[in-house]
Amino acid sequence: MKRHLISAADLSRDDALLILDTADELAKISERSIKKLPTLRGRTVVNLFFEDSTRTRISFEAAAKRLSADVINFSAKGSSVSKGESLKDTALTLEAMGADAVVIRHGASGAPHRLATWVRGSVVNAGDGTHEHPTQALLDAFTMRRRLGSLDGRKITIVGDVLHSRVARSNVLLLSTLGAEVTLVAPPTLFPVSVDSWPCQISYDLDAVLPKSDVVMMLRVQRERMNAAFFPTEREYSRRYGLDRDRVARMPDEAIVMHPGPMNRGMEIAAEVADSPRSTIVEQVANGVTTRMAVLYLLLGGADLGGEIQ
Amino acid sequence: MKRHLISAADLSRDDALLILDTADELAKISERSIKKLPTLRGRTVVNLFFEDSTRTRISFEAAAKRLSADVINFSAKGSSVSKGESLKDTALTLEAMGADAVVIRHGASGAPHRLATWVRGSVVNAGDGTHEHPTQALLDAFTMRRRLGSLDGRKITIVGDVLHSRVARSNVLLLSTLGAEVTLVAPPTLFPVSVDSWPCQISYDLDAVLPKSDVVMMLRVQRERMNAAFFPTEREYSRRYGLDRDRVARMPDEAIVMHPGPMNRGMEIAAEVADSPRSTIVEQVANGVTTRMAVLYLLLGGADLGGEIQ
Amino acid sequence: MKRHLISAADLSRDDALLILDTADELAKISERSIKKLPTLRGRTVVNLFFEDSTRTRISFEAAAKRLSADVINFSAKGSSVSKGESLKDTALTLEAMGADAVVIRHGASGAPHRLATWVRGSVVNAGDGTHEHPTQALLDAFTMRRRLGSLDGRKITIVGDVLHSRVARSNVLLLSTLGAEVTLVAPPTLFPVSVDSWPCQISYDLDAVLPKSDVVMMLRVQRERMNAAFFPTEREYSRRYGLDRDRVARMPDEAIVMHPGPMNRGMEIAAEVADSPRSTIVEQVANGVTTRMAVLYLLLGGADLGGEIQ
Repeated sequence: MKRHLISAADLSRDDALLILDTADELAKISERSIKKLPTLRGRTVVNLFFEDSTRTRISFEAAAKRLSADVINFSAKGSSVSKGESLKDTALTLEAMGADAVVIRHGASGAPHRLATWVRGSVVNAGDGTHEHPTQALLDAFTMRRRLGSLDGRKITIVGDVLHSRVARSNVLLLSTLGAEVTLVAPPTLFPVSVDSWPCQISYDLDAVLPKSDVVMMLRVQRERMNAAFFPTEREYSRRYGLDRDRVARMPDEAIVMHPGPMNRGMEIAAEVADSPRSTIVEQVANGVTTRMAVLYLLLGGADLGGEIQ
Repeated sequence: MKRHLISAADLSRDDALLILDTADELAKISERSIKKLPTLRGRTVVNLFFEDSTRTRISFEAAAKRLSADVINFSAKGSSVSKGESLKDTALTLEAMGADAVVIRHGASGAPHRLATWVRGSVVNAGDGTHEHPTQALLDAFTMRRRLGSLDGRKITIVGDVLHSRVARSNVLLLSTLGAEVTLVAPPTLFPVSVDSWPCQISYDLDAVLPKSDVVMMLRVQRERMNAAFFPTEREYSRRYGLDRDRVARMPDEAIVMHPGPMNRGMEIAAEVADSPRSTIVEQVANGVTTRMAVLYLLLGGADLGGEIQ
Repeated sequence: MKRHLISAADLSRDDALLILDTADELAKISERSIKKLPTLRGRTVVNLFFEDSTRTRISFEAAAKRLSADVINFSAKGSSVSKGESLKDTALTLEAMGADAVVIRHGASGAPHRLATWVRGSVVNAGDGTHEHPTQALLDAFTMRRRLGSLDGRKITIVGDVLHSRVARSNVLLLSTLGAEVTLVAPPTLFPVSVDSWPCQISYDLDAVLPKSDVVMMLRVQRERMNAAFFPTEREYSRRYGLDRDRVARMPDEAIVMHPGPMNRGMEIAAEVADSPRSTIVEQVANGVTTRMAVLYLLLGGADLGGEIQ
């Protein structure tokens, strides 16, 4: 495996399976009520967040602490970064302070890639602009595999604002690597121009796709990012692309419903769907910690898991 | 004991005494310069603060860390909560991330109660609206007991803005459970309508009550909450309800002065009174950490304290 | 050594050498890939920051965690301090909570000194107003010693806004204690009136001083602090006092370039100079963690380092 995790595209099928298998092992250890492993004792993980994202930050923080790493939270707001310090100087600072891994969330696509050229430690992309969010894709794949078994040939439908979604992009890349068949569903104005080159199908018609979906993943509607003129009204969006009870009834019996959170209940997903047994939304959060433990474990060169139980 | 600590009203006399006795044990261990116990190693305590309260947050953080728990601070400002995520989804997120205890401070009365219906971990109310602040009452009772011995039959006077004070309400409930006799003193407009049903006396005349008080607890004047039309001026308030040297002279020789902090020196309490040997204000802070250790210890099912010394 | 570190002036030559030698030991231990020492297990270090300074806060946090201390971050913004609580009450609160050391950054010169009169724990000044920043001076001295050997008789030039610089003042005091000869270079309006009494030379002419400097330390231009009427324009400042390649060429071959960061690249220092092999800027950051470990180690009464390796 590489030293960094910047993009789902960097993961070979073997890399991805290694991460998912390691997460499986960690989940089993956790089920035996062993909540803390000594693996990363003495290592420092820095959460470098240029955008607020408490959920993702906490997930990485919990993952690192369960591996006994020291965690330092660096919120770029109000820091010297906002006084004009360059990302490079920030990187060199963290490097010099001995960060073994830097988990970065940044509003600019490509920032984690640049960061990785400046530091010796591992860089983990926790979301960059509209580009990628690879650990989200990994935790989603992990969740699917736990519910459905192997992803080979599985039909995954991802619904919503693909244009602005780093979650959609990372999922398409990873899921196709793992042999799944992905269909993206959105209004025509919410696809990026480049989508033709992505390894997936596209559709404008959710109802046509539902009956043959093993997984339906709803994306969060990010109202603040929308261009009002080209975007359907909330009511129209909800009517055409929202997942309610009637639509769920058209899905196969074993199919599951996913959402990366935070949800707009009543907008892209009905509350009763979010809370139904088909929904994996809470599992996704728990699996997020486990998957991020696996990523940190593998990137920071953890020893064999068998000997790691304290 | 119950799994949560939401209200002082939930504590039986035995529960309350168990917490205070456990805090006594922990204080003794601390006096032997043993500053850290391994009891909660591998457990995660989340501080979920929807209102700023650095002092209370730090007190819980110090308490959890002395028990070797991992602590994750979640300030709701700037998080997805402020983007409209419901408390329920936040709760499910923390649950899924493996929080063993959630310490919640919230502006809405009743929020901790609702949180407790959604999570398997323990919920500790660190202040909800104008409702309750049970660990403050516990640390106050602990402080009184250390100074005065048993609280049975003790006369406690609580002075100030009872209407907006969760501290007053939690103290009245806990102290009456412990057998003390509480008198609330305030201007007529600063009592809640419901005060008639509280297990305490009320008075508008501080000077009449002082000579028979074992404890005088001053509440913080929260100017920002006052309705100017019904509230005395600061000068008038200070003259009629402020605790100065002359008023302290009317108290019994052994009587003590308490304040939950932060103080408005010169307003509800004179600086020389706050710094006098009768004042327990600094002890209250130290006892806050010890009492919160006891609460976390008991809620999270700590083993026998005797075996816990590292 | 004293119990606090408030001012570089408090350090005798022996004190300063003890800190630098201890930092040397810690650096050697770190080079053997031992990243965490158990020395301060069970001790609590509070970072009490009244001004934003993420870099300094993180440096102290990393130092304390590598010594296994618990770290509590207390940002005074939004806390009860901003509601009018006095520094004294904050100090008593931290004291009561069991802080073994308080690392304080404050906008008012003298605040750490006052804090030290109220608490039993150790106080470390992490920057107070325009007064002092002693750990910055220590890490700078440590960096020089690692590059150049003993500081006795070394010629150190410090360039920039001396008037507002706590870094300059602390460096002058410490470096003269260590036997170095310091020259301050700035426009006439950017010297404090008191500079005549400092143990150093002053100059307005950078080019004249460069050829005989073993070290050239550039200070950050803090535009927000400048009084426009008396201050040169940025362009003029950069032309007369900025360190570019041409000026570096006039320095002795072995001379080094320092900057406390964060830099204004292109303003007081050219990017190519900052990134050149003569620059110690990244080392300074790494040395900052090591030096602060040494300070905390010595102030909190760490045992002999030899037995501390885990």
